[in-house]
Amino acid sequence: MTKTAQLDLKSLVKDVPDFPQKGIIFKDITPLLAAPKAFDDAITRLAAPYQGKGVKAVAGIESRGFLLAAGVALKLGAGVVPIRKKGKLPRATHCESYDLEYGKASIEAHQDAFARGDKVVLVDDVLATGGTAAAALRIIERIGARVVGVSFLIELGFLHGRDKVKGYAVDSLISY
Amino acid sequence: MTKTAQLDLKSLVKDVPDFPQKGIIFKDITPLLAAPKAFDDAITRLAAPYQGKGVKAVAGIESRGFLLAAGVALKLGAGVVPIRKKGKLPRATHCESYDLEYGKASIEAHQDAFARGDKVVLVDDVLATGGTAAAALRIIERIGARVVGVSFLIELGFLHGRDKVKGYAVDSLISY
Repeated sequence: MTKTAQLDLKSLVKDVPDFPQKGIIFKDITPLLAAPKAFDDAITRLAAPYQGKGVKAVAGIESRGFLLAAGVALKLGAGVVPIRKKGKLPRATHCESYDLEYGKASIEAHQDAFARGDKVVLVDDVLATGGTAAAALRIIERIGARVVGVSFLIELGFLHGRDKVKGYAVDSLISY
Repeated sequence: MTKTAQLDLKSLVKDVPDFPQKGIIFKDITPLLAAPKAFDDAITRLAAPYQGKGVKAVAGIESRGFLLAAGVALKLGAGVVPIRKKGKLPRATHCESYDLEYGKASIEAHQDAFARGDKVVLVDDVLATGGTAAAALRIIERIGARVVGVSFLIELGFLHGRDKVKGYAVDSLISY
């Protein structure tokens, strides 16, 4: 990968103060998603480390993670697997709870979402405290798949989310 | 487009009875999404009618619509615009309410999600009663974009959703 001619993705992320609650600066990625070249560039760069590596599935975390994971899956010739908020998937699931930057939640995946030993990349929009990603990784490994990497569009370094996903190959395209 | 050599997408959709409530047969598309060739084939076919037509954005309806819209956007060289459940988008929105097959809900998009006159394709997983799609179309047109088509992975013909999206080019890949 060359670093030349990369688009300035960061300029397309909008800071929105006090959303979803006072004191939080929300990173709004919708302008980046809506810009055709930036969107394609972001997806291409998220997929790049895994090209030709035999990845079978890209797992995306609901909801914004879906927008990225689906694209990465297409670029890699893989399937896409939704890891959803509790209660949305219709069949038997593995569920894990976690603390959010603001609040608490549970996510789950179908118990047959991956075959044993499948190579899986986990994709989400933002690495914040890392709680969501860690819960998703527990689910994927409980099902018996093999996580080959974790990729984020944005990393909020000051929240030290990498501490929660130690031992994994972690990439992010935009850092704060 | 040739109809030969098309994958049997329908065989990868699982019927789940009584989800999310008694009497509903839920169409679970996760096996299709997870199958690399079927996923790519579905996205390619959803995008096909709009190749080379200057589509600027593909709008996807939260959450499952995101998984398809992102892929279609990439195939078309367009951006992807999330139409979300109320309260999830951080900036000023246009919001519309609608009746669901089971329940009631509101969706919204950022007021600057599209530029005036932009050609937009709306994508969602299932055309059921058509209420969600009709609300999404009202939002897109209120913003001033131009809807060139509406595409669904699945159409539940017995619910007559097409009546709610009359006047639009409507496509679906799998019919019941």
